[in-house]
Amino acid sequence: MKELELKRKIKPTVLKLGGSIITRKEKPLTPNKGVIKRLAKEISQARAEKLIVVHGGGSFGHPIAKEYGIAEGFKDKSQLIGFSKTSQAMTMLNKIVVEALLNEGIPAIAIRPSSFIVTKHGRIENVDWSIVAKLLELGLVPVLYGDAVIDSAKGFTILSGDQLVAELAIELDAERIIIGVDVDGLYTADPKVDDSAKLIRKLSLKQLKELKDEIGRSKLVDVTGGMLGKVNELMRAVMHGIPVLIVNGLKPNKIYKALRNERVVGTLITR
Amino acid sequence: MKELELKRKIKPTVLKLGGSIITRKEKPLTPNKGVIKRLAKEISQARAEKLIVVHGGGSFGHPIAKEYGIAEGFKDKSQLIGFSKTSQAMTMLNKIVVEALLNEGIPAIAIRPSSFIVTKHGRIENVDWSIVAKLLELGLVPVLYGDAVIDSAKGFTILSGDQLVAELAIELDAERIIIGVDVDGLYTADPKVDDSAKLIRKLSLKQLKELKDEIGRSKLVDVTGGMLGKVNELMRAVMHGIPVLIVNGLKPNKIYKALRNERVVGTLITR
Repeated sequence: MKELELKRKIKPTVLKLGGSIITRKEKPLTPNKGVIKRLAKEISQARAEKLIVVHGGGSFGHPIAKEYGIAEGFKDKSQLIGFSKTSQAMTMLNKIVVEALLNEGIPAIAIRPSSFIVTKHGRIENVDWSIVAKLLELGLVPVLYGDAVIDSAKGFTILSGDQLVAELAIELDAERIIIGVDVDGLYTADPKVDDSAKLIRKLSLKQLKELKDEIGRSKLVDVTGGMLGKVNELMRAVMHGIPVLIVNGLKPNKIYKALRNERVVGTLITR
Repeated sequence: MKELELKRKIKPTVLKLGGSIITRKEKPLTPNKGVIKRLAKEISQARAEKLIVVHGGGSFGHPIAKEYGIAEGFKDKSQLIGFSKTSQAMTMLNKIVVEALLNEGIPAIAIRPSSFIVTKHGRIENVDWSIVAKLLELGLVPVLYGDAVIDSAKGFTILSGDQLVAELAIELDAERIIIGVDVDGLYTADPKVDDSAKLIRKLSLKQLKELKDEIGRSKLVDVTGGMLGKVNELMRAVMHGIPVLIVNGLKPNKIYKALRNERVVGTLITR
């Protein structure tokens, strides 16, 4: 009960830094150091209180995880070194992100998902979030990330940063979620390949579901360029009344403005 | 119940790599890379099954933790960045150790104590060790370390690698504990300053207690050069019937022989 009260009063902001902005997707194990440094500055200048940062894997986690089929679960011992390597690559990326935050005076603290989260068929099961809550209460900034984790059904799997964001936000009763990606938000089509793609500035849960059905019917594989899959994972949080704001983290000051609650180009999804 | 059965059948070996052997104590943030590489080779060549590695902080954790008074608990916000920096320094050292193990083909996996362990007045409280047990069962090698952790009584504190070793060994019903330090074992005096110091090859719990009382009476601050304090932490494990073998990790092949259950110079403490 005390734990619950603690959580209720914190009302944190959950900030996701996508793998597409903090790493160079085309180059394995290459951080986008300039972007990471700028984002750390923006986070510091925004003076956001009760902040949780979650980052993706980008070119650190994904190539190795794919090579060893980690997301598909344990099949034989030859995957074990791949599980280790995926995990270690994520530690490396996380170390760079935490270091950048520390350099800006932010008391960031790495939280390793695989050390306390178990999934079942890829979905997070009953997790004790009290350490994260306690760190927030002290004034520290927990930094989590997508990770290779133990799965009670298939041995191990990959836990995405997006699932982590939704779960954290719901469990810690977050005030809001801010998602930093490499496009301005959710478009009607993939803005990287389709000039007619229009940015959707505001979206209710009902509209989002309609959009999903529409795209489902067209049988195309996510015409929005992967953004809808990401949004799908976050829908659970929106259903809990937590607004999700998607902004372009590659463009300066978007994350800063979002953290400051200032007007910013992006997609806002509310219940 | 199933969890308990899982633990009972694993019977792991817990290997501690002291901060005094894997870092250069006189130089802040300086790993003893040659020693780490050799130890990784020895661990690989010994082909130990069901192995857990725990390492200390040495010149990574201690100087920063001391500067900010982390072990004494939370007093004011100015310590927060110190908590972060201590934690980050330990991540850096852990990354180096895990990388060395990976390079020798060992599927090592970093386990971050601060992500799932809370202490109370500096002592570990009810911890869920099932992830570590599951990783062992899969064939992975969990690598833990002394860390800056949340403390339910004083905000935060430092959790020593030695306390972690004893707790892990008891909770996972370890077969044995091997401690790698920078001396040959427990001496009758500090071998680094006293030529008459004699290595104690074998010690029962009863003899250890007598030794402790004797030293306590002499009112000297641990004449054994800090080794008795370390042993003190491990006594709980010995009481549970888990033998503790202390060997010199700075001398080649001692850890290898210990892992292989071969005869080796050192101190063996049994119930």
